[in-house]
Amino acid sequence: MILCDIGNTHFFFYDEKRGVFKEKADEFDISSMHERVYFISVNHYWEKRLEHEENWINLRQYVDFSAFYESMGIDRIACCMAVKSALIIDAGSAITVDKVEQGEHMGGFIYPGVNAMQRCYKSISPRLEVSFNFDIDLAIMPKNTRDALSFGALSPLICSIRELSQHSDVIITGGDAEKLHPFLPHAVIDHELVFKGIKKIIEGIA
Amino acid sequence: MILCDIGNTHFFFYDEKRGVFKEKADEFDISSMHERVYFISVNHYWEKRLEHEENWINLRQYVDFSAFYESMGIDRIACCMAVKSALIIDAGSAITVDKVEQGEHMGGFIYPGVNAMQRCYKSISPRLEVSFNFDIDLAIMPKNTRDALSFGALSPLICSIRELSQHSDVIITGGDAEKLHPFLPHAVIDHELVFKGIKKIIEGIA
Repeated sequence: MILCDIGNTHFFFYDEKRGVFKEKADEFDISSMHERVYFISVNHYWEKRLEHEENWINLRQYVDFSAFYESMGIDRIACCMAVKSALIIDAGSAITVDKVEQGEHMGGFIYPGVNAMQRCYKSISPRLEVSFNFDIDLAIMPKNTRDALSFGALSPLICSIRELSQHSDVIITGGDAEKLHPFLPHAVIDHELVFKGIKKIIEGIA
Repeated sequence: MILCDIGNTHFFFYDEKRGVFKEKADEFDISSMHERVYFISVNHYWEKRLEHEENWINLRQYVDFSAFYESMGIDRIACCMAVKSALIIDAGSAITVDKVEQGEHMGGFIYPGVNAMQRCYKSISPRLEVSFNFDIDLAIMPKNTRDALSFGALSPLICSIRELSQHSDVIITGGDAEKLHPFLPHAVIDHELVFKGIKKIIEGIA
């Protein structure tokens, strides 16, 4: 049994033997996968395309969206289902921040992912095209453009997370988890979080 | 004498009679302006184009960049020169946040402007295309997509500004000043701030 979380840019797989591995969504070859795959997807194109593949089981129908909200990404829901109480940060193409208390979703917000934020600055002016400096000290106000942009992308997000996590454990997941972790030293990284949620969804079917 | 601040998308003018008025950068007709114009510009194209216009005086050469930093936008510098001590938020195509204490620039950061942030979300996924809800309560965690995005764009920024302004006056300027003001009730709006700085630059020439 393979578990899969289909995002906007990648397929993330999990099986007991190999752990977590990923494939690019735009290069993925369905015929490479013969095993049964239980999946969730926020990617409309792939969700539609996998409809008639017998070994691909879409878990959407088994998720109780009413405990969250109707348009909430199913990957966010799976991550929330994986914990009892925590602030969950999923740092992917978007960065989602969700609060769960005693199994109840208290709400959450969506911030642009690291790459999206870099593209965003570039779209404002070519002078704002930089690769972020993840070694900056957020206690010091920046005095150069690269740090002013890195600080602008990171410091507000970290400020919000710190404010929301005063009485919570913080779990970071997603492709950019390691980039954010140094700014949130009390957080733990868990790259299997979404799959723990997917397992909960499967347990709910039985 | 007319003062002008040329941004990425607009020309902002000021004269004693008319106050502040603006023109779109991509539609602006130089020949419509016969008076002498003292200007600053972050817009390379227009700065170059105005080089040989006799009535357009570029103030760049009169600005002491060493008191700030070499690549800092001249509009940010002018705003900082306008105050003795304050946290300055210039909400335009980018949102700049600068701290000035006793006439000294302590540093600052750059956050995407409101429109850039909306485009940024849309670039991540068409499902994230929304117009922000500026009536949200930042004390309540969102439970729908539009609010999750609005909160994500606004709350981290406001968190950072509140943290940096604990012992400072806060001045908001720029085209989106009114949109941010409700979240910063102690701030004052000053749409003439950059022109106060431009006047300081001109006073320095004499």
